[in-house]
Amino acid sequence: MWWNADGTSPARRDDGQMRILVALGGNALLRRGQSADAATQRRNVEDAAVVLSELAAEHDLVIAHGNGPQVGLLALQSESYRSVHPYPLDVLGAESEGMVGYLLELALRNQIPDRDIATLLTETTVDADDPAFEEPTKPIGPVYSGAEAARLRAERGWVIGRDGDRFRRLVPSPEPQAISELRPLRLLVDAGVLVICAGGGGVPVTVGADGRLRGVGGVVDKDLTAALLARRLDADLLLMLTDVDAVHLGWGTERDHALREATVDQLRERDFAAGSMAPKVEAACRFVEATDGTAAIGALGDAVRVVGGDAGTLVSS
Amino acid sequence: MWWNADGTSPARRDDGQMRILVALGGNALLRRGQSADAATQRRNVEDAAVVLSELAAEHDLVIAHGNGPQVGLLALQSESYRSVHPYPLDVLGAESEGMVGYLLELALRNQIPDRDIATLLTETTVDADDPAFEEPTKPIGPVYSGAEAARLRAERGWVIGRDGDRFRRLVPSPEPQAISELRPLRLLVDAGVLVICAGGGGVPVTVGADGRLRGVGGVVDKDLTAALLARRLDADLLLMLTDVDAVHLGWGTERDHALREATVDQLRERDFAAGSMAPKVEAACRFVEATDGTAAIGALGDAVRVVGGDAGTLVSS
Repeated sequence: MWWNADGTSPARRDDGQMRILVALGGNALLRRGQSADAATQRRNVEDAAVVLSELAAEHDLVIAHGNGPQVGLLALQSESYRSVHPYPLDVLGAESEGMVGYLLELALRNQIPDRDIATLLTETTVDADDPAFEEPTKPIGPVYSGAEAARLRAERGWVIGRDGDRFRRLVPSPEPQAISELRPLRLLVDAGVLVICAGGGGVPVTVGADGRLRGVGGVVDKDLTAALLARRLDADLLLMLTDVDAVHLGWGTERDHALREATVDQLRERDFAAGSMAPKVEAACRFVEATDGTAAIGALGDAVRVVGGDAGTLVSS
Repeated sequence: MWWNADGTSPARRDDGQMRILVALGGNALLRRGQSADAATQRRNVEDAAVVLSELAAEHDLVIAHGNGPQVGLLALQSESYRSVHPYPLDVLGAESEGMVGYLLELALRNQIPDRDIATLLTETTVDADDPAFEEPTKPIGPVYSGAEAARLRAERGWVIGRDGDRFRRLVPSPEPQAISELRPLRLLVDAGVLVICAGGGGVPVTVGADGRLRGVGGVVDKDLTAALLARRLDADLLLMLTDVDAVHLGWGTERDHALREATVDQLRERDFAAGSMAPKVEAACRFVEATDGTAAIGALGDAVRVVGGDAGTLVSS
């Protein structure tokens, strides 16, 4: 335990039990290059559930999750069936919340059968004028070669961007402003229910000039929604679990090294990879700035060690 | 008001407010012959939300809904995208819970912005040995002509059955035994949250010999799940809203007439159309037999009049 000099975590309550907002990467549920088969995702989710249940034995968890691979696949499926117009992204996002939420809930129920678990559909209010709608940045669906990317750009009018040495479809990722279901969510969490929510950052909705809510085409960043939720639910720790072991400086260079601890100021000075690490760092900074809480970023498989202070990157003020 | 001779409803509490378990037909969300476009379903759901919000002004609602048209479409979309194995029915059912739940929640939020609303993903335990797995009865997806039905039977190995003068794919519809999320559900309902749940009857799961839960291929009848939920949540009224105005005797014959009132014994003597009215009648009988409650069956557009006793069929003991 390395968080404080006296060996205690700054985030822990007296009984050592924390309320942890876990943000689970969509890539942790479907790893890069894996087939998007249901069976593959079921197995990945079962692995994740083993780790999460270890955390749940010690702490109160609220689990948010990504949906990048899943919502992209649903879009492809929807476009392939030509008898019905393809479904818009808000509806597909809601489908992905149902799908991933179900797989996670079932796998967790098998690990911790005595715990009350609930999956709450989440809508996230965003600004209709968010500049993100003009500049898509959120990668969804499978990776493509350069030739495939060029064809899809031409045929479907998609915005496609680089993702490492491959390409992926990009969609707008507006800023999360509020969570529609906050009060019911809080009710469940305060009663000790393990809640799965904010799948894919929540379905983005805007308030029109007529005061009515409308779903909009985009995918909210689940780490930013998780940071917002962590604040609103008074979480002690925002724990972002992904497929890399920590925040790195000099990623991919000879001077590449993992950060074990960082302050908000230190992180704000640097640039991180847009679409992957940058939103996690931003989410960590926002949560730490707004609260007395702590944020941590690390690998899903290391989750218990990250919370224990033996792996990942810890962000504090 | 015709429920009691003194003009009061047997189901009403002293303040006139009831806890109503509303079971909304999948066909009420996508009418026969309509395109399964998202825009069409959005409009239908908005119409439904107007009616439901009128009920919600007077009563506590828990809203369950069907998913027959929706899960069938998701299956077709999933099969059309050949790069990934088609998704199994349990996963598609969960997708449909997310999709329909989202559309309903958003539309209701626009009608009653001050109410707390939450959509809870629901898993329903069924028996792995349920004979339903040997004899599919639940129609899903679009209607087909005889020629299309023959082709789909041959090409995809689907079980296809008659649906009026057309054909539809049939899937197993096992008996609902228990609701995994009952305690969180009850917590929300008792706190006055309007809850949307049990979409498509809940995703069917079985307990294996190893004690582990597994999703299974089927679609639970949402009226039977609604009857189970209505009992477990101590609802005063089980209200099944569909696209016909009431339970009819002699349906389609010269002697066709709507039943305004019926006892369980009277209904148990008759046969009703499998796949449409029969499960509603069975659900009504089960709820009334097991409780002091009342069940009602009627058209979605008549919902307020059905609750007021001026339309639909009332079932009591």
